[in-house]
Amino acid sequence: MRIVALAGGIGGARFLRGLKDVVAPDDEITVIGNTGDDIHLFGLKVCPDLDTVMYTLGGGIHEEQGWGRAEETFAVKDELAAYGVGPSWFGLGDKDFATHIVRTQMLGAGYPLSAVTEALCDRWQPGVRLLPMSDDRVETHVRITDDGGSRAIHFQEYWVKLHAAVDAEAIIPVGADTAKPAPGVLEAIAAADVILFPPSNPVVSIGTILAVPGIREAVAAAAAPVVGLSPIIGGAPVRGMADKVLAAVGVEASAAAVARHYGSRLLDGWLVDEVDADAVESVTAAGIACRAVPLLMTDPAATAAMARAALDLAEQVRR
Amino acid sequence: MRIVALAGGIGGARFLRGLKDVVAPDDEITVIGNTGDDIHLFGLKVCPDLDTVMYTLGGGIHEEQGWGRAEETFAVKDELAAYGVGPSWFGLGDKDFATHIVRTQMLGAGYPLSAVTEALCDRWQPGVRLLPMSDDRVETHVRITDDGGSRAIHFQEYWVKLHAAVDAEAIIPVGADTAKPAPGVLEAIAAADVILFPPSNPVVSIGTILAVPGIREAVAAAAAPVVGLSPIIGGAPVRGMADKVLAAVGVEASAAAVARHYGSRLLDGWLVDEVDADAVESVTAAGIACRAVPLLMTDPAATAAMARAALDLAEQVRR
Repeated sequence: MRIVALAGGIGGARFLRGLKDVVAPDDEITVIGNTGDDIHLFGLKVCPDLDTVMYTLGGGIHEEQGWGRAEETFAVKDELAAYGVGPSWFGLGDKDFATHIVRTQMLGAGYPLSAVTEALCDRWQPGVRLLPMSDDRVETHVRITDDGGSRAIHFQEYWVKLHAAVDAEAIIPVGADTAKPAPGVLEAIAAADVILFPPSNPVVSIGTILAVPGIREAVAAAAAPVVGLSPIIGGAPVRGMADKVLAAVGVEASAAAVARHYGSRLLDGWLVDEVDADAVESVTAAGIACRAVPLLMTDPAATAAMARAALDLAEQVRR
Repeated sequence: MRIVALAGGIGGARFLRGLKDVVAPDDEITVIGNTGDDIHLFGLKVCPDLDTVMYTLGGGIHEEQGWGRAEETFAVKDELAAYGVGPSWFGLGDKDFATHIVRTQMLGAGYPLSAVTEALCDRWQPGVRLLPMSDDRVETHVRITDDGGSRAIHFQEYWVKLHAAVDAEAIIPVGADTAKPAPGVLEAIAAADVILFPPSNPVVSIGTILAVPGIREAVAAAAAPVVGLSPIIGGAPVRGMADKVLAAVGVEASAAAVARHYGSRLLDGWLVDEVDADAVESVTAAGIACRAVPLLMTDPAATAAMARAALDLAEQVRR
């Protein structure tokens, strides 16, 4: 079976680990990773979501933190601060720096991000085929108004520096309109037996992937059932700032509203948490098969059960 | 008093520390640093000689090693090796990486190396004005013949990887012929009250600086006395591979031969070690005032005495 999953960072990566636990040995998982939160720091190209997927599935992730490397040190960061070179709010560790150095060197030598990602995965052996959504530069910016006035800032500045403490007024995936899907992305979607939307951010993760021209259309046109898992439980995101960015696009932070935001043109099935069981009826009414199951990735077994439930629902809605 | 010193790496840097110990508080030292051993590693611009001077005079050097940072760690290097990305023979530590990251980012933003060096020195406060010999890229290559055939390799590969274990057949300062002296270099030489050649490598350090068109001529035309210190003691270099690269340019590895190699057009005075006292006569005969003094930089006091001797000789030969 060929499974395609669109994925953001921590939530997507953890779900994928559960998915790997339940698929058959000869099933193939292709992950289309969000690159809209990529950022250039210190002249280096940093791809937080791709790296979180790669480190998580490859066994290098900082488990408690959910991002970055385990047993990390921060000598480079401290030295950059001693030079007075910022930003200081993005926590790059020494091991992580090496990844960005290799990536930046390869990009500078002319390799596209997809080839670079494949090369990095040669080491990590994540057990999935990890594709960036695009080889073209896309950067999600967030429009805010605060003491600094009204302005658009990089998503990482909004989330990591400002902790999403101010309202997001608009989400702007800069460059997405002219980006092309990376090699293999549309082909994987077209050839998929199942397409999954993990409980990643529906706006700045999955939404950004779908904003690359051709990807949304390919998902909508795919023969495979498309099943998503709600990142919103009981009206709030499990982690992250989905509520803030959903508000920016006029969508309520609820499991049902996110399903309707994707819509029945994309989604065939939708899993909500048991606390949101009352959403099943309205989601079903919107033309999307819906089940209420436990959606907290509290441990590997719980995560695997979620993946199993998503695959089961895909079979139920398969036409 | 305005002192100009041409300098390579370890030997030059240690001498400069001694020089700082003996000059008056309002004396100004300008160091023209060799950039011929600069190398691009992992997409980063590494300037070993400039950094050795900066770290040594700024208090960050690894004292025993003579290069690199004190209390260094190697997480980035280990990770690069885990990615299979080389070379592995150049020992870049985590703290050192930060310097190269800052430098590369600034160069990428369009700043010339001289401005970058000034910015890095803002942190290190080396107590001298450190100028790269040129803002243009110059890379010393060494022609060798070994199992890999006859070929020219980067100086760092010759020295750090191959440990100068094969003969150097030619020294090629690639790019030197079209390089321009960095801003301030010619002006500093012209305005100098004393010009010093520390006991740096006469071929790949001082020789490369002098190979930048205009610098040799400026030193020769300078009103200031020019005094050098022999890096060769008792027929061998104190450290490094000067004997190998001197052979490549047809110069005997002796204190007297190095003085004659520079020549009386450049040098007004030359210090040899006491063990080379018999060289005084022949160097003097070549038109260069010569004194035999202890030239081993065994401790700060010995190094300061060498600097004092160089300044004293400069006064004696001042016209």
